[in-house]
Amino acid sequence: MRILLINPNITQSVTEQLARVAEAAALPGTRITARTAPRGVSYISDRAEAQLAGAVVLEVLADEAAHHDAAIIAAFGDPGLWAARELFDIPIVGMAEAALHTAAMLGERFSIVTFAPALGSWYRDCVRDCGLASRLAAIRSLTSAFGSVEMVADEQEAALADLCRRTVREDAADVVVLAGAPLAGLSARIAGSVGVPLVEQAAAAVAQAELLARLHPAARGAVRNRAGKQSLGLPASLTRLLGQDHG
Amino acid sequence: MRILLINPNITQSVTEQLARVAEAAALPGTRITARTAPRGVSYISDRAEAQLAGAVVLEVLADEAAHHDAAIIAAFGDPGLWAARELFDIPIVGMAEAALHTAAMLGERFSIVTFAPALGSWYRDCVRDCGLASRLAAIRSLTSAFGSVEMVADEQEAALADLCRRTVREDAADVVVLAGAPLAGLSARIAGSVGVPLVEQAAAAVAQAELLARLHPAARGAVRNRAGKQSLGLPASLTRLLGQDHG
Amino acid sequence: MRILLINPNITQSVTEQLARVAEAAALPGTRITARTAPRGVSYISDRAEAQLAGAVVLEVLADEAAHHDAAIIAAFGDPGLWAARELFDIPIVGMAEAALHTAAMLGERFSIVTFAPALGSWYRDCVRDCGLASRLAAIRSLTSAFGSVEMVADEQEAALADLCRRTVREDAADVVVLAGAPLAGLSARIAGSVGVPLVEQAAAAVAQAELLARLHPAARGAVRNRAGKQSLGLPASLTRLLGQDHG
Amino acid sequence: MRILLINPNITQSVTEQLARVAEAAALPGTRITARTAPRGVSYISDRAEAQLAGAVVLEVLADEAAHHDAAIIAAFGDPGLWAARELFDIPIVGMAEAALHTAAMLGERFSIVTFAPALGSWYRDCVRDCGLASRLAAIRSLTSAFGSVEMVADEQEAALADLCRRTVREDAADVVVLAGAPLAGLSARIAGSVGVPLVEQAAAAVAQAELLARLHPAARGAVRNRAGKQSLGLPASLTRLLGQDHG
Amino acid sequence: MRILLINPNITQSVTEQLARVAEAAALPGTRITARTAPRGVSYISDRAEAQLAGAVVLEVLADEAAHHDAAIIAAFGDPGLWAARELFDIPIVGMAEAALHTAAMLGERFSIVTFAPALGSWYRDCVRDCGLASRLAAIRSLTSAFGSVEMVADEQEAALADLCRRTVREDAADVVVLAGAPLAGLSARIAGSVGVPLVEQAAAAVAQAELLARLHPAARGAVRNRAGKQSLGLPASLTRLLGQDHG
Amino acid sequence: MRILLINPNITQSVTEQLARVAEAAALPGTRITARTAPRGVSYISDRAEAQLAGAVVLEVLADEAAHHDAAIIAAFGDPGLWAARELFDIPIVGMAEAALHTAAMLGERFSIVTFAPALGSWYRDCVRDCGLASRLAAIRSLTSAFGSVEMVADEQEAALADLCRRTVREDAADVVVLAGAPLAGLSARIAGSVGVPLVEQAAAAVAQAELLARLHPAARGAVRNRAGKQSLGLPASLTRLLGQDHG
Repeated sequence: MRILLINPNITQSVTEQLARVAEAAALPGTRITARTAPRGVSYISDRAEAQLAGAVVLEVLADEAAHHDAAIIAAFGDPGLWAARELFDIPIVGMAEAALHTAAMLGERFSIVTFAPALGSWYRDCVRDCGLASRLAAIRSLTSAFGSVEMVADEQEAALADLCRRTVREDAADVVVLAGAPLAGLSARIAGSVGVPLVEQAAAAVAQAELLARLHPAARGAVRNRAGKQSLGLPASLTRLLGQDHG
Repeated sequence: MRILLINPNITQSVTEQLARVAEAAALPGTRITARTAPRGVSYISDRAEAQLAGAVVLEVLADEAAHHDAAIIAAFGDPGLWAARELFDIPIVGMAEAALHTAAMLGERFSIVTFAPALGSWYRDCVRDCGLASRLAAIRSLTSAFGSVEMVADEQEAALADLCRRTVREDAADVVVLAGAPLAGLSARIAGSVGVPLVEQAAAAVAQAELLARLHPAARGAVRNRAGKQSLGLPASLTRLLGQDHG
Repeated sequence: MRILLINPNITQSVTEQLARVAEAAALPGTRITARTAPRGVSYISDRAEAQLAGAVVLEVLADEAAHHDAAIIAAFGDPGLWAARELFDIPIVGMAEAALHTAAMLGERFSIVTFAPALGSWYRDCVRDCGLASRLAAIRSLTSAFGSVEMVADEQEAALADLCRRTVREDAADVVVLAGAPLAGLSARIAGSVGVPLVEQAAAAVAQAELLARLHPAARGAVRNRAGKQSLGLPASLTRLLGQDHG
Repeated sequence: MRILLINPNITQSVTEQLARVAEAAALPGTRITARTAPRGVSYISDRAEAQLAGAVVLEVLADEAAHHDAAIIAAFGDPGLWAARELFDIPIVGMAEAALHTAAMLGERFSIVTFAPALGSWYRDCVRDCGLASRLAAIRSLTSAFGSVEMVADEQEAALADLCRRTVREDAADVVVLAGAPLAGLSARIAGSVGVPLVEQAAAAVAQAELLARLHPAARGAVRNRAGKQSLGLPASLTRLLGQDHG
Repeated sequence: MRILLINPNITQSVTEQLARVAEAAALPGTRITARTAPRGVSYISDRAEAQLAGAVVLEVLADEAAHHDAAIIAAFGDPGLWAARELFDIPIVGMAEAALHTAAMLGERFSIVTFAPALGSWYRDCVRDCGLASRLAAIRSLTSAFGSVEMVADEQEAALADLCRRTVREDAADVVVLAGAPLAGLSARIAGSVGVPLVEQAAAAVAQAELLARLHPAARGAVRNRAGKQSLGLPASLTRLLGQDHG
Repeated sequence: MRILLINPNITQSVTEQLARVAEAAALPGTRITARTAPRGVSYISDRAEAQLAGAVVLEVLADEAAHHDAAIIAAFGDPGLWAARELFDIPIVGMAEAALHTAAMLGERFSIVTFAPALGSWYRDCVRDCGLASRLAAIRSLTSAFGSVEMVADEQEAALADLCRRTVREDAADVVVLAGAPLAGLSARIAGSVGVPLVEQAAAAVAQAELLARLHPAARGAVRNRAGKQSLGLPASLTRLLGQDHG
């Protein structure tokens, strides 16, 4: 099974970190193709950046979807997810969505723990769009400054573990999702000290993508018919796709 | 991986039908143990029957959970699900819950198609308890009489396929979940004529159970601490479990 | 009028305490039959215990409903309530439900004050199932340890009164419900120091049960038709009831 | 026990009809004082009329509350209810509110059946303000013309019974509330043909008022403190009341 | 364009303050007629006072609507708003509603900052009735005593600015609405120190009223048909209006 | 006042039609600059196209915002709206949002009438994102085929007017919003036959943009702080903007 993992930001080291976690969690026969957004920002933290990134995700998918069995949009917040499902025939999962639905089968209420307060609004919208707002205990974030996004999980490991414990205790969370690509891989290091399941976003994403590809190889039809449209100035593969009637 | 599939009703043939679909969908290394409720009703269609069945599910789990990596509560409606998560350390998924979360990653709005109107209230509560009410397009049901519950999928195949097409067209459903144990296995036969993904409840359940057991082998802690309680008149295994402090 | 009060836990002293409060609040002609669950746990504090208790409630009702005009499920959290309404013809009220609807006619926002944080999730589900979540100000609980459940109301009277005053001041509650069978009878002792109405759960339950029995002696039909089912291994009275067509 | 029943419209015959139904449903020791609004409209069917009527309700209460143990605002829609609770110390129930909370203890979903489509918006707001929107199955109304408001229950008895049966069948209602003062007393005549409990609005109101007066004779404090205000041009009793500090 | 500004309380100085702010914000050709309620209370802070004030608003409108192009109900909380729209043909805006909808086009989440905790319940209902509860970040209020309502904005300017900054920081508000007639005009003095847009309630109200009058000079039909009613004891202009069929 | 009107699709004739309606509705001193998306699709009808269009909207704004006092995103569905508010200092309104908030001040419940069923999901999301779902009566759409998007308003004028009348009658809508750029200008031609206010989307947008620019010339700060980001492959103006710290 071939799974496309798209990092919607332009930082190659984040792509590699996500791919490592995804590969470690994948089933034996799964091959992961990791792609970094060819344009965009160094990391995505609000809806302006997500709007731009989501458009780039569609371009990457237009080039690559036909050669894969499923795709992962590997930024917590899922830029372009609902759009992608309207254009492509393979199953597509958002990394946030996969983590949230997985969390929802492990306990009644989940919390999201992340590294910067600015991410809160975007993540809250994402939970609402998944329809899971009634299952959310809280969104908790580091508030102190940190050195660099790539290093935040290492630098702030103790503080992040502490946030996890606090949301279990104070917000009555049954499960915690560590959110934001720079936290990929952190759950294994701190799980022991938290006492409730920690959902690893990239692991949940690859496993849900495998599951969907196995059970629903042709997701075609998952959204209603679309009429082909003329377009202008878009990459060739996307132009072709947008021009096709569907359904 | 050993997965326990509990049919909460007393009908052995339904257990076998669910097990066949689950085995066909399972990963190579998965072994499924199917158990039929030792007491209860012939099939479950309302909350009175679900209340009784859920208690029996806890008894079966108390005997069997320690020998399995995950468990499935294999009645759409998930009797005893939230209770079971408070007592057992292995991942436990409800067949309805698994189908609904899977559907939610395939399209924006899902419909539930089932075979008897009486099931509607119970299923609607189940969607609400999963937190997914905003993703529900409609619950559609056969209204005509049918010969027997075991035969309803065969007898009414055309009518059920027609209900699926109608909910896509009239309720704007992007995905359809075929609900109720007697419909296990039906999706493969009618998928071609519907045009959107049909979620097969027992397949979704086994795949989500495998996924959770793989990623979260120890679900302990998924719910908050419970104090051991004295009990009276309950089976020995359950008595022992209820008597333990947890957390 | 004969009212059946079922204590779903196995602790006889709690049954007696509830019966005393209910009798004190009942109308002159009301006779209360108090029954303690013949099996189950010493007190109920989560959904696992509620699942088991709810099934036992149905068994007690199957034996006793025909000789009573109404029944009370006398554990805050209302185990088996929605199930019971599908099987029995007499009005049945949950002690939580009765307290919450009564509170909702005394002020805009009510708070729930209880003695252990573990009860929070179960009570929150109960408020949601009643449809009254928009009227809930807060659920507040003691967090300190206490000696025994039977003694908690006496030992912690001052702390519980303080919680009531705090939820009025900080959560803008107009009414407070003292929740959990061990707090039965407490409201009379602390009402004077709180300044807003305190709903006494067992009093509200008996009064609402009387009201329903007076206005709706035949609640038959309150839920839609149910088809008789074959069953196995259940007590004779329940087997007979489940086997009847209804509607 | 003395209960004040305020008809917020100016039609004396409606007051008498409501009082008859309330008296028939009251407990032995209850005496009902019926008051017709001294100014206002012949019957209330929208929020403009309810706004005016609610102000008059406050004036009647200012004159009468001190001589009664509880009060009923006897127009479905409950004009002035939330306002009245902020000014008066006796329990006050709205006729709609009482019927809806009673219905909510008889079944899961209730429908409202009434005689004119214009009432729909006002009644829907009322259900929402009670916090019970999730329990509402449907609001169904006659759409045909009728001779007079006083006669509508007699003239349209068959059509109203038919609406009740339809909402049970098509909207899956477990209980039906007959709404609007002109339908007072109708439930007894058609209950036999509907098959689910019909809540009689004036009976529910008087019984809930008795219950509250019995359990909560001093409702003072049910709403938070209010500071006394200077006022101008209002009746003397209301002026005095508004001028008092409360809390 | 002639715009009627109705102050629903009886305090002439508040009317003048609101009119000054509204005039400063109005378009060149706009003439504002300010009216003070002929009866009622010195300022409105709960639903009891709002119920009375709303009825008086209808009387003022009955006299004046025909000579104006639009009307403003100039108390935050909008007493009588939904009622007024059912009776009058000109556009009518509530001062709260205008501020909230304007805020909703400036940022995702707005907070309300006001001067007395007692206002909280009334304002929260108002946000809910506007349908904007999901956009509300928080309602924050002064809790300390103040000298007089007319002077509160001057006396407490620093404390109110501080509340604005706190709700931006702690509640993640993108916009702040200063609420309550006595705060009219305050936004200009503190905007510089807050860092997010402050919506000036009287300015928003006059601008939205102008906009509606320009785009929708005949709002007739905005609510569904109403049948003329007989009435008793109401002012002549209102009697005439209530007596007319509409639609 | 200079207002930027961005048509997010590539069809110049639609831009001209929107500009004509906006100019006709604008205040005397307003100058409108109309811009057509430099790349994208011929018209936008789903979230895939909206995702791409929203990114282009940000590019146009990056070039033009500094020379304007406010901007309109002139596609019903508001592609890029929430993103744009995070990057730019001038007020920005979505054409849908402006129409919906305006409608919400004209009546209690609004309906959306449009020309193609495919638009339903996108528009429903838009209403939800505005927080106005509780005010929506229905979304109604033509279901028959039509010749061309540019001509649909002319060809289907009678059918669209009929849809408006039906949603007033059957869905109890108080106001109707004609939605979708190809319907710009239609309201004036059919308003007479509908009987409730019809909100003209482009007129509402320009008027709300003027209002915001007048009252809130500096919207800076309307969203919380954003840190400057490195970016790659984006247009120069957007790169510069994304690189700036804000707040």
